[in-house]
Amino acid sequence: MRKPSSPVDRFRTFSAEYVPRIDAFMKEFFDGRTDGAELPEIREMYSFLAEYCARDGKRVRPLVMLASCHGYGGDAGSVDIIRIAAVLEMMHSFLLVQDDIIDRSALRRGGKALHVVCGERFGRGSHNPEIGSHLALILADVLFSGAIGIIAGSGVPPRAKDRFMKIFADTYEITSWGQVLDILNSASRKISSPGETALRIATMKTAYYTVYFPMLMGYALAGRNSDRERERIREFSLPLGLAFQIRDDILGIFGKEESTGKPSDSDILEGKRTLLVDGAIERLDGRDRDRFVSLFTKKSKEKKDIDKIRAMIRESGSLDAARCRHGELVDLSREGLARLNIDNSRRKVLGGLVGLIEKI
Amino acid sequence: MRKPSSPVDRFRTFSAEYVPRIDAFMKEFFDGRTDGAELPEIREMYSFLAEYCARDGKRVRPLVMLASCHGYGGDAGSVDIIRIAAVLEMMHSFLLVQDDIIDRSALRRGGKALHVVCGERFGRGSHNPEIGSHLALILADVLFSGAIGIIAGSGVPPRAKDRFMKIFADTYEITSWGQVLDILNSASRKISSPGETALRIATMKTAYYTVYFPMLMGYALAGRNSDRERERIREFSLPLGLAFQIRDDILGIFGKEESTGKPSDSDILEGKRTLLVDGAIERLDGRDRDRFVSLFTKKSKEKKDIDKIRAMIRESGSLDAARCRHGELVDLSREGLARLNIDNSRRKVLGGLVGLIEKI
Repeated sequence: MRKPSSPVDRFRTFSAEYVPRIDAFMKEFFDGRTDGAELPEIREMYSFLAEYCARDGKRVRPLVMLASCHGYGGDAGSVDIIRIAAVLEMMHSFLLVQDDIIDRSALRRGGKALHVVCGERFGRGSHNPEIGSHLALILADVLFSGAIGIIAGSGVPPRAKDRFMKIFADTYEITSWGQVLDILNSASRKISSPGETALRIATMKTAYYTVYFPMLMGYALAGRNSDRERERIREFSLPLGLAFQIRDDILGIFGKEESTGKPSDSDILEGKRTLLVDGAIERLDGRDRDRFVSLFTKKSKEKKDIDKIRAMIRESGSLDAARCRHGELVDLSREGLARLNIDNSRRKVLGGLVGLIEKI
Repeated sequence: MRKPSSPVDRFRTFSAEYVPRIDAFMKEFFDGRTDGAELPEIREMYSFLAEYCARDGKRVRPLVMLASCHGYGGDAGSVDIIRIAAVLEMMHSFLLVQDDIIDRSALRRGGKALHVVCGERFGRGSHNPEIGSHLALILADVLFSGAIGIIAGSGVPPRAKDRFMKIFADTYEITSWGQVLDILNSASRKISSPGETALRIATMKTAYYTVYFPMLMGYALAGRNSDRERERIREFSLPLGLAFQIRDDILGIFGKEESTGKPSDSDILEGKRTLLVDGAIERLDGRDRDRFVSLFTKKSKEKKDIDKIRAMIRESGSLDAARCRHGELVDLSREGLARLNIDNSRRKVLGGLVGLIEKI
């Protein structure tokens, strides 16, 4: 007798079914572009984009969108919906490329950041030291144009398509503002009302972007349009998205490299102002606080600085508080999930995602 | 008795009628966003975008799109079509902002480049010297999201909208590749087959972008869909677009500041590889060629270098050749215009644009 599958397995099974389809469509898209390119430089750069988009990733946003669309009655076999899921992944790459240019990150998803790929390939024989970033910036635009073309060509009914596009536009607008606040916050020498700002950034950059908007897009693509249900989607999505961010923050400082794909020192080295860091600043007093802030904002941190920062986050109680908050948010999203008017098979898939986000 | 209006006046009258409507819609759009913004930082940055998009400019692309749409039977009173014309202008700003970040240009359209505006406002008290560019890069994304939202909300019939969006996607994809080639070409220390590369870049970055795609978008928005007419549009648009670029190149080196909005030394100072420059390189021999290339690629050029470069472009025959080519292209586009199946009132408007581009 087979063991009944755990909630997390439900999400894994769903992922195993749909990720290959999403990736296959992206491959088909880029193959078409590569074959059609008249110039060797363009062909080569399409191949960079194809490789970049094909890298291992959880494909969380496309999967949430698909689960929502199917759960609200959308056709689970629709190729158009798979294409639009791929659009979300391409747009995710669009944002990651820009993110890495801004943060000067060298690595992404187990490979080199796109601006590094371009810089290594075209930097030689160039008198533009920034050529990698400049090319990557424009290649990101190629992803966005490609995404719009795929949406235009998809056979989604007009009203649903318009509603989808409206949410699509909101998604990248709100995410941009989250990114703007993040840039302002990270660059600021002042540490003022830290918790509130970090929370707002996490809401805009992650909770809306990763869960709420993909859920809404799936709902719209299924042809549905009720304000009450959208409100329920919000009550499920925002806590889950915030829990996702807190988990990411904790793993980014205390996690192991294998599970996150980046060295777990990097968030500290970059001085990333997460909820966890802001929580420590809020909790520490006087000299401890000054010491923490000066260590954390130090340009080149040594091994012992990093260890001390980690210890202070732990000792301040910020780590425990974050774990506690994370647990509460997961519970809230589970309650929200139970209230959604979706079919039970997809509810279980989303429950699996909640289960994954629950584990730290 | 009133004098019959010249062709150029026809375009000016059309422009005087529609530019205020395009600008009014952009203002309305940004006012709505500014009013709705919850955070003062976001409100302020929307106001930067509003000011940037409202700056004086010829609005060539929206006007070409409108003339084409009306000429092919689209409703000249449609608010939706005005909105989409405004979208083209917002997307133009999206590209200009990125362009200025890449070129590190300080000025644009008689004002400061957006990355300079952001840098001056938020650079103080920041330990990120690139904060202006980082913010401007994300603000450009806000323009693109806004543009998609406007398209989604417009009442254009579904088929026409899908066709429009397909062309919209092609527009920014092809323009991106033109930009990529421009970056590679400008950064290259080699001067190989210069004319061909500059021509390709001018075709992709200007001829398609400024005339051909806006014409096609207008055609699609009018609900029309014939391959033969699209071919005629191409025969009219590409020569006109190339003539537009050559005119811009000539004015960029020999023009007066008042007519172009930027100091006429700037193209030479930036080492912009135009058809005119590449024409000089092709025409010069031996030592003259080496001298020209070394002067032109010099990092900090003095007044006498600039004068010498200008003189060499003239003496090499490149200026005359460019003028001659420009004239031929204008003639070709006039022949193409006569063959378009559009109504005569809009044909005259487009003829006025040809007349404007003819004058150097």
